[in-house]
Amino acid sequence: MSGDRALAQFRLTPGAPVHLASTDTHDTPIGPQDKDAGKAALAALGDPLDDLQQALWAQGRGGSERRVLLILQGMDTAGKGGLVRHVGGLLEPQGMRLSTFGAPTSEELAHDFLWRVRNALPRPGVIGFFDRSHYEDVVIARVEGLAKAPELERRISAINAFERELVADGVSIVKVFLHISPDEQLERLTDRLDREDKQWKYTPADREARGRWGAYQSTYADVLARCASDDAPWHVVPGDRKWYARWVVATMLHETLTALDPQIPGPTYDVAAERELLRESDPLA
Amino acid sequence: MSGDRALAQFRLTPGAPVHLASTDTHDTPIGPQDKDAGKAALAALGDPLDDLQQALWAQGRGGSERRVLLILQGMDTAGKGGLVRHVGGLLEPQGMRLSTFGAPTSEELAHDFLWRVRNALPRPGVIGFFDRSHYEDVVIARVEGLAKAPELERRISAINAFERELVADGVSIVKVFLHISPDEQLERLTDRLDREDKQWKYTPADREARGRWGAYQSTYADVLARCASDDAPWHVVPGDRKWYARWVVATMLHETLTALDPQIPGPTYDVAAERELLRESDPLA
Repeated sequence: MSGDRALAQFRLTPGAPVHLASTDTHDTPIGPQDKDAGKAALAALGDPLDDLQQALWAQGRGGSERRVLLILQGMDTAGKGGLVRHVGGLLEPQGMRLSTFGAPTSEELAHDFLWRVRNALPRPGVIGFFDRSHYEDVVIARVEGLAKAPELERRISAINAFERELVADGVSIVKVFLHISPDEQLERLTDRLDREDKQWKYTPADREARGRWGAYQSTYADVLARCASDDAPWHVVPGDRKWYARWVVATMLHETLTALDPQIPGPTYDVAAERELLRESDPLA
Repeated sequence: MSGDRALAQFRLTPGAPVHLASTDTHDTPIGPQDKDAGKAALAALGDPLDDLQQALWAQGRGGSERRVLLILQGMDTAGKGGLVRHVGGLLEPQGMRLSTFGAPTSEELAHDFLWRVRNALPRPGVIGFFDRSHYEDVVIARVEGLAKAPELERRISAINAFERELVADGVSIVKVFLHISPDEQLERLTDRLDREDKQWKYTPADREARGRWGAYQSTYADVLARCASDDAPWHVVPGDRKWYARWVVATMLHETLTALDPQIPGPTYDVAAERELLRESDPLA
């Protein structure tokens, strides 16, 4: 768990082309090799993450700008929601912020596409989770024809500038593409149809988007390649095994926080004097 | 755990005067009687809360406006943060929203005091946690002399109107005052001074506010009495035993959700037809 093993393993090289079709969605190149081991390894990250998160939070209260932003993208059923539940569930609610980005509302459409994203950023000391993000505004927009080429180009430039700005403001960005196979998606969509308590999660639009699988994959490959920078790299994480993706991303967070090495700030007052004043204080006097 | 045992036990009667000094902060009138039993009882609420929360969330996605808002107030060290950690930790991040209210920023001060509160409300299907709230704007404001009497009166009327509006909009409001004794507060503040990893949580302002204990208690008693309505009652929960307060509030949430009886919506499409179309879809064709 030392160093940046998971981050390094799945990181895209900035500037290099991305080939999603030849990237194994079922691979487990490092870490736990079966579900039980994966669940145990994830649970074991709870305490260390808790300590690091507390220190990050305390440091933020002390005036540090440092914070973390995990950006999750993936096809429908890639496992973003479950990942938030299982990895985010290891963290304290106070120190995390989850933002989900659906189809923009009319208010959101009246602003630039980054407006709602700026409003959803984690504050200093907080770990932010983005379930979908500003990347929807280039990927969906291109595949579904919601914006023209010059506007898409503008957005890609704007995203790169925006993320550089965030990094300069103390945000450690971890971008994860949860990569699943079309077979795995078929299984998960079928499961939603088969289980009465999951039918509400399914919409015919999911199936229609699935019909444009190739267009989505090639668009993702292009956008990931163009927005993978040294400061805010993209990671392609095998998503067919949910327990594996969750362990990988929790480990990436752990590695990111370990590298930040947050420090609980010392007292800004005279501890001995306060102890004395407190002992003398009698609220019922 | 049936009915509204915890809600009924600790609910203030609308219109009745409130006597905090004679309300036992150490009492355990219902439920678990020791720490181990309390922790076990809290953990046992995890699964039922999870099921109810999932249904509330699904119902919200289906168009229902129903949501829950837990408002937590109390003196410094009353245990609000720990309660959010332990009770909020039972819930899925996706279906909860935590908002903490510190001293207003300059932007917040430029707006009416309810502005930041409106921005922090849970969306349909979500369980909101308020760690402090709009009640700070009457309690602190009165004790610390931050607002004059007519303005304080205006705010109390505004709060009652605001909460009526929320209830009409489908928000189930659960208001909890975590009630601790001055002795317990002394112990908790001293603990913060004594433990190096907790010193950052202490400020001399905490001690100064403690010096105005009586003024805070009488102000709380007055405000709680004037803002306890049938639709949005206040509850005074004994806070000296943290494990007990956490069990009580988790039980109140469980009772509130049980009464709401959220229903997972049925499919809005033809399941059999979708199953067929999905089987026929081949994204690699």
